[in-house]
Amino acid sequence: MSGIDTILNIKEEVLKGITPSEEERRKINRIASEILSTVNNIIKERGYEKIIKAEFEGSYAKDTWLSGEVDLDLFLLFDASVNIQELREIGVEIGKKAGYMLKSTPIEQYATHPYIQFYYDGIKIEIIPAYRVSSADKIMTPVDRTPFHTSYVKKKISENPQLKKEIRILKKFLKGIEVYGAEIKIGGFSGYLTELLAIHYKSFENVLLAAKNWVPWHVFIDISQHYRGRDTKDLMKYFNSPLIVIDPVDKNRNAAAAVTLKKLSEFIIASKSFLLEPSIKYFYPQTLNIDHERVRYELARRQIVSIKVDTPKNVNEEILWGQLKRIKSSLFRIMESNKLKVFDSTIWVSDDFIVLLFELERLNFPPLEEHIGPPLYSKNLRDFLAKYNRDKNVVGPFIKDSRPVVLRKPRYNNVVEVISEYLPKIKMSKDLSTKFKDSLEILTREKIYKYCSNSNFCLFLQKWLTRKFPWIY
Amino acid sequence: MSGIDTILNIKEEVLKGITPSEEERRKINRIASEILSTVNNIIKERGYEKIIKAEFEGSYAKDTWLSGEVDLDLFLLFDASVNIQELREIGVEIGKKAGYMLKSTPIEQYATHPYIQFYYDGIKIEIIPAYRVSSADKIMTPVDRTPFHTSYVKKKISENPQLKKEIRILKKFLKGIEVYGAEIKIGGFSGYLTELLAIHYKSFENVLLAAKNWVPWHVFIDISQHYRGRDTKDLMKYFNSPLIVIDPVDKNRNAAAAVTLKKLSEFIIASKSFLLEPSIKYFYPQTLNIDHERVRYELARRQIVSIKVDTPKNVNEEILWGQLKRIKSSLFRIMESNKLKVFDSTIWVSDDFIVLLFELERLNFPPLEEHIGPPLYSKNLRDFLAKYNRDKNVVGPFIKDSRPVVLRKPRYNNVVEVISEYLPKIKMSKDLSTKFKDSLEILTREKIYKYCSNSNFCLFLQKWLTRKFPWIY
Repeated sequence: MSGIDTILNIKEEVLKGITPSEEERRKINRIASEILSTVNNIIKERGYEKIIKAEFEGSYAKDTWLSGEVDLDLFLLFDASVNIQELREIGVEIGKKAGYMLKSTPIEQYATHPYIQFYYDGIKIEIIPAYRVSSADKIMTPVDRTPFHTSYVKKKISENPQLKKEIRILKKFLKGIEVYGAEIKIGGFSGYLTELLAIHYKSFENVLLAAKNWVPWHVFIDISQHYRGRDTKDLMKYFNSPLIVIDPVDKNRNAAAAVTLKKLSEFIIASKSFLLEPSIKYFYPQTLNIDHERVRYELARRQIVSIKVDTPKNVNEEILWGQLKRIKSSLFRIMESNKLKVFDSTIWVSDDFIVLLFELERLNFPPLEEHIGPPLYSKNLRDFLAKYNRDKNVVGPFIKDSRPVVLRKPRYNNVVEVISEYLPKIKMSKDLSTKFKDSLEILTREKIYKYCSNSNFCLFLQKWLTRKFPWIY
Repeated sequence: MSGIDTILNIKEEVLKGITPSEEERRKINRIASEILSTVNNIIKERGYEKIIKAEFEGSYAKDTWLSGEVDLDLFLLFDASVNIQELREIGVEIGKKAGYMLKSTPIEQYATHPYIQFYYDGIKIEIIPAYRVSSADKIMTPVDRTPFHTSYVKKKISENPQLKKEIRILKKFLKGIEVYGAEIKIGGFSGYLTELLAIHYKSFENVLLAAKNWVPWHVFIDISQHYRGRDTKDLMKYFNSPLIVIDPVDKNRNAAAAVTLKKLSEFIIASKSFLLEPSIKYFYPQTLNIDHERVRYELARRQIVSIKVDTPKNVNEEILWGQLKRIKSSLFRIMESNKLKVFDSTIWVSDDFIVLLFELERLNFPPLEEHIGPPLYSKNLRDFLAKYNRDKNVVGPFIKDSRPVVLRKPRYNNVVEVISEYLPKIKMSKDLSTKFKDSLEILTREKIYKYCSNSNFCLFLQKWLTRKFPWIY
């Protein structure tokens, strides 16, 4: 069986699992029309028919959703004459009312606008207010672009209905290799970006064949040829991103801006590996079982430090993840500037608690560090000698090559001291900073096992300790 | 009291201690004439008067020796017609015979020629065969240059008798700060170089005033102006030495070639420090007493590894030191290329045993090291993945930034393993290599204290552990 045959067989097999059945479609369509009629009734009742048009967007609207994984995104498209404050209030009011009428608990979420989320019949529903504008270059808020994305993709699919399969396969692949999702938490490929890649390269396997040759920071994909004939060098500098995919509906936007270098690289390596040795494992990675003994053993032999705080309540997930990523990078830089090599780091968040994990070369500083003095011709030499010549706590000053050097005790004994000193200096929101003050716990090595009483965390920890690609088992 | 007054007072005080008394001079002169007449009698007896002329060289001949520290270097200057084999045989024969006649035990030493060393009345005597040539540019062996050095310095001193004092002071200073001696063991300033510096700068304090502004690799001193008007850049490149002092009697020779970067830097820093705060301590550094408790404490808290072997017998000291320095540098490079940071290293040699000491940041490797794989676009990526993807002993491969990485156990656990593996690969003489095979002992930290049963070693060790400049106490 040749490679391409294998891939075609795998696609066929995967499609069986991810294409919604007629029964599932009927159920979702029923739910969707219930939601829509409920919302439309509210709009009518309130007398908003002239200024609001409710419309499904996203993978449901485009019919690119995967079996068992659909969300319903119902947009309330407001006339541009409504001011933003009104849009927000009316949007929330309608969404909440719909939730209550459908006997669910509506939760207010916040991106650029507030929006309402609730569950109905096991399906996640989101009611999202936005402006209806005449073209994508006239949008007033980022979310106003979505209807243009929906109609662009729908148009492309109507021209080539086979694309739906390619999109579904690619989406499942990206999920399987854990690079799907544009949230800050993931930093991966959005649904729309996935669709664009399938549209541009025409098939799942063509996307992978292209991706395997991608070099981060050197990929510029311009599907609608907005920049035809232009020198891409300047454009790449302007967009300044590991992956650039010009949004067909807005030439000033990089539809791949959320994709991090790491996730892009993971996609490239997965594409390469899959094409060399195609396997269903990329789509259906193994779910690990917790091996408590293994976790304990790894924690004991590795140089890992954890920072745990309680999760602040009512903080938007994107904002929280943004802050945590910033805190993680700050600590990384601080550790490395203190000559502690960091191998890897990660973040775990649940409703209860947050854990930042760092794996280092060593948790402890050496007993002595080298402190190199000024060159012999420097004006500062005198101060250096005055400071250390008679200091019995340092070794030296002595000459090494041509420089005066002392060996002295490092400022810190271990990474925990470094973290404790620097954490209070990192700027963060008041909510989070309060948690860092009141609930901070810094643990190292096997002591971290304590948190394995939370099995979700423990599973996450075990996976991070192993750190193999998801398709390897 | 101004700085220069202080310096003049110090000079006066030091001179009192180092200028030979009339009594001492009478004794040395008597010994010298006994040696000379003994040797001349042998020459006459053997009928060598026409081909050999015996003549004192060195600090005795120049009257630049320090009280209590004189050696007598008697050169047997052979006619150029004698072949080298004869010169060697006759030289050794005369030297030995003289030793026996003076009831001493002559020892055969070897530099470029063999020469004879013995003690007479407490004074070290060396009988050195060389060729007598008409000018320094016609020398046949390096040692033939010495009579020209002697006569050059004597001529300069006769023009300015005050120079003798300046030379003696400078010599004592260089000894006090431990940079005197051109042997490989020291890598410092020879007696002749000391004289040249005093001649060139005219006084002790002028030498120091010049030296405090020296920048290693950028010092070019041309006393006899052999290269007047020439661009020194090319010349500095040609001589390629931290300190260049053109030999007045041979313009192709750098009289400071033996001076190492470290010893030159120590001289610069001592000059600077002395001029800022003149003190007799530079000339008479304190002799430490062994503080056994301190040595044990320091060994315990520091990261030190020692390599001990028995001293091979009948090996020329210069050759032995040359080999040991090479071995030390090899080990240094090997440690650093294995990511073990070396703070400092040293060598100790006695008739019984040799010790190499290394102080490191850490003796042990971390439990895991980062092994970065090829870039994603590399042809070698496939092999890297094939090697590690299913290897349960490594963490990963995972993506860090844009590179595949694994964490793996380092090849070695500690520096002792590194040394044990690399030592047999270092090229050395058979004598030494046999000792490294038969008597090697590698110890770390407090275990090294064991060798403190040898109090000379212990004192040396204590000084190295402290590593303060000799003038600081």
